[in-house]
Amino acid sequence: MRKLEYPIIILNFKNYSEGTGEKALKLAKIAEEVSKNKNVNIAICPQTVDIRMISQNVDLPVLAQHVDSNNPGSHTGNNLIDAIIEAGAVGTLVNHSEHQLKISEIEAIIEKSKEKGFLTCVCANNIKTSISLAALDPTCCAMEPPELIGGDVSVTTKPDLVRKTVESIKNINPNVIPLVGAGVKTREDIEKAIKLGAKGVLLASGFVKAKNPKQALEEMAEGILS
Amino acid sequence: MRKLEYPIIILNFKNYSEGTGEKALKLAKIAEEVSKNKNVNIAICPQTVDIRMISQNVDLPVLAQHVDSNNPGSHTGNNLIDAIIEAGAVGTLVNHSEHQLKISEIEAIIEKSKEKGFLTCVCANNIKTSISLAALDPTCCAMEPPELIGGDVSVTTKPDLVRKTVESIKNINPNVIPLVGAGVKTREDIEKAIKLGAKGVLLASGFVKAKNPKQALEEMAEGILS
Amino acid sequence: MRKLEYPIIILNFKNYSEGTGEKALKLAKIAEEVSKNKNVNIAICPQTVDIRMISQNVDLPVLAQHVDSNNPGSHTGNNLIDAIIEAGAVGTLVNHSEHQLKISEIEAIIEKSKEKGFLTCVCANNIKTSISLAALDPTCCAMEPPELIGGDVSVTTKPDLVRKTVESIKNINPNVIPLVGAGVKTREDIEKAIKLGAKGVLLASGFVKAKNPKQALEEMAEGILS
Amino acid sequence: MRKLEYPIIILNFKNYSEGTGEKALKLAKIAEEVSKNKNVNIAICPQTVDIRMISQNVDLPVLAQHVDSNNPGSHTGNNLIDAIIEAGAVGTLVNHSEHQLKISEIEAIIEKSKEKGFLTCVCANNIKTSISLAALDPTCCAMEPPELIGGDVSVTTKPDLVRKTVESIKNINPNVIPLVGAGVKTREDIEKAIKLGAKGVLLASGFVKAKNPKQALEEMAEGILS
Repeated sequence: MRKLEYPIIILNFKNYSEGTGEKALKLAKIAEEVSKNKNVNIAICPQTVDIRMISQNVDLPVLAQHVDSNNPGSHTGNNLIDAIIEAGAVGTLVNHSEHQLKISEIEAIIEKSKEKGFLTCVCANNIKTSISLAALDPTCCAMEPPELIGGDVSVTTKPDLVRKTVESIKNINPNVIPLVGAGVKTREDIEKAIKLGAKGVLLASGFVKAKNPKQALEEMAEGILS
Repeated sequence: MRKLEYPIIILNFKNYSEGTGEKALKLAKIAEEVSKNKNVNIAICPQTVDIRMISQNVDLPVLAQHVDSNNPGSHTGNNLIDAIIEAGAVGTLVNHSEHQLKISEIEAIIEKSKEKGFLTCVCANNIKTSISLAALDPTCCAMEPPELIGGDVSVTTKPDLVRKTVESIKNINPNVIPLVGAGVKTREDIEKAIKLGAKGVLLASGFVKAKNPKQALEEMAEGILS
Repeated sequence: MRKLEYPIIILNFKNYSEGTGEKALKLAKIAEEVSKNKNVNIAICPQTVDIRMISQNVDLPVLAQHVDSNNPGSHTGNNLIDAIIEAGAVGTLVNHSEHQLKISEIEAIIEKSKEKGFLTCVCANNIKTSISLAALDPTCCAMEPPELIGGDVSVTTKPDLVRKTVESIKNINPNVIPLVGAGVKTREDIEKAIKLGAKGVLLASGFVKAKNPKQALEEMAEGILS
Repeated sequence: MRKLEYPIIILNFKNYSEGTGEKALKLAKIAEEVSKNKNVNIAICPQTVDIRMISQNVDLPVLAQHVDSNNPGSHTGNNLIDAIIEAGAVGTLVNHSEHQLKISEIEAIIEKSKEKGFLTCVCANNIKTSISLAALDPTCCAMEPPELIGGDVSVTTKPDLVRKTVESIKNINPNVIPLVGAGVKTREDIEKAIKLGAKGVLLASGFVKAKNPKQALEEMAEGILS
């Protein structure tokens, strides 16, 4: 299965109407173009129902926004990992601030995913939780302060928070890739995140809801290169 | 948007590996063939990630196994109704025994769905809950005793329960289509359900995990015709 | 077991610090005094941990803020109905907007409570949900628009909403006592609620966080008498 | 506030009818007597509604079975930490297998509790989760394999699991007291747990549902002494 490379920009399409269906495909193609032109690693997190369409039509790694840990069987409405893999995703967000999970479920998702070579990007709301989740050995751990998600203040306005998160994750488990997110919207935000030690960013509205998503992403891509 | 016609067999593919990805598509095509040959109404509930593939390749109405009530926006990992519609589904199961919801969420899903012409098949665990949910004016209300789901004892072994459920739903809201499910696996089970007043059945393992799904479905289709 | 009488003021102490422990007991004694002096029906909903202390020391009916439907057994951290009854409560709120439940759980709580003569005051967020929940045959159904809860705008500023809720509950199940709540803080609010057909109100901050709770409750008590 | 001392036997009364109300008080007095006579550390986890009665009448540390992390305010049906403290509890179980929580909630409960000198005994379902939760710096971490809870096979029949859990907790955070539980019912079970490095056990049915609880607890107390 395809792997992620770092530093990376992970684009969460959320439930934004601009990131749904045909519009999601169009945005994903823009991201693909920017990734190639700028030689920057980008991954896409579309809605579950759009995963197959995007992974079949866009040459970028695709992550699910959420999966469930259950095995195949008598479960209705769950996102079975095997089904998500067959549809073309290489990994998944886990415990996003907008889809929080019980600790035993997070642990089970990480274990099941590992067996299948499926990547896990767990999300944490603060330093303590980042440490706790990094101990579970996910692929990445993305720290996003909930109060900044979807807003105009970037997590990088708190450099100590970013630096300490990165260090804490490394201390507890050097295998885990530290990422940050929340309010990330500009070249400077990303540049700062990388300088503070993050190996990438999660971003959503800064791309999906930008007036000119291509231009916005090109500028942010330069932040990761500089 | 396409409507459902009754009496109907609703095939829930659940998270069964036999109902995932390419295998799901193959099963859906078998269902399409049986539906045409036998002139019987059949709908398919695949996993969310498989909805688009199946609705694009199979000429049967497709239902989601679960949706969320939220509007487009900053929500991660939810099944946005608009996205599910764009992918080709005409409706959804709501509150399946394996994916139970808060009452305010059920009400909101039904209201949002109605505005969009999207069908709702709410599931209830007993007569009382059927009445309560039928009062919310969904398209269908499917009563499934949880203790029989996935087992070998059909709900129709309790004829009084089926009859009383059908009557109770009609009394509270004659617009709601009464369905039953749980343990339904044979021609006789379906025949009995229809005779007791149900306008169709929900079934899962009786088709998806049958040794010969085509033959099993053909036999059950005859139950609905007789 | 003691019953409720109507019209009634139900005082929800929530998790307010003014409604916790010794302070809760003091507030409950004030309510008892107002109830006796004004000859008005009042019930108290303290936190679970304070139920026994208040029911042993105050001569007013006590309701729990929440219970679980499970039978005695291997469950940790749940509010067992039997334990709540033994501690002196005569009933419980169910599905408060701040503690929403699955429909099957609501139905089970109502059934279990009925067997034990324990009263259920289910809470609903709008007219539709009120109808749905009244169909489950609880003792009372209290409609509280979530956006008004804890605020300064009373539900009674929407007279059509209150009137239609009361009528809808009566139509579906005339045994259910219709109540309203959210933002109720003055004599006029309560007077209006009663005139519109409600048999009482749920109120919290209007009493618990009032500068002078005794005076506030006395004034509101007059609203119910007039 | 009173502290726990180790090695310790923590008695979870769950929702057992034998551990409810007056019966709970009687059992707690038996535990008090055994604790004094045998000079063994014992703590009691009664139901929330029984906390005040037991902490006022029994000279043993009392833990809640569950608390919520919210501050005082507009929350209904939650177990406010301040209220639980005022009622006499010195700490709480967190994330018991029968009451599992989101990771951000666990982290918040631990932080809030620490500020108030309130003890936290987090429960984990396996070694990985124990490590993850110990990283959050609770007072104790109790590992209980869910499949053994309430059964007749003790966790100590898996000595490697117990030993590795204890070591893993120590490695990640030497401040955390390692406990184990599930199926613990005999003197030998406890003796083994202590020898394998645990500083105590969680037990429920082995005491609460014993034919002769006093005798059962006396025998288990000897296991901790030996």
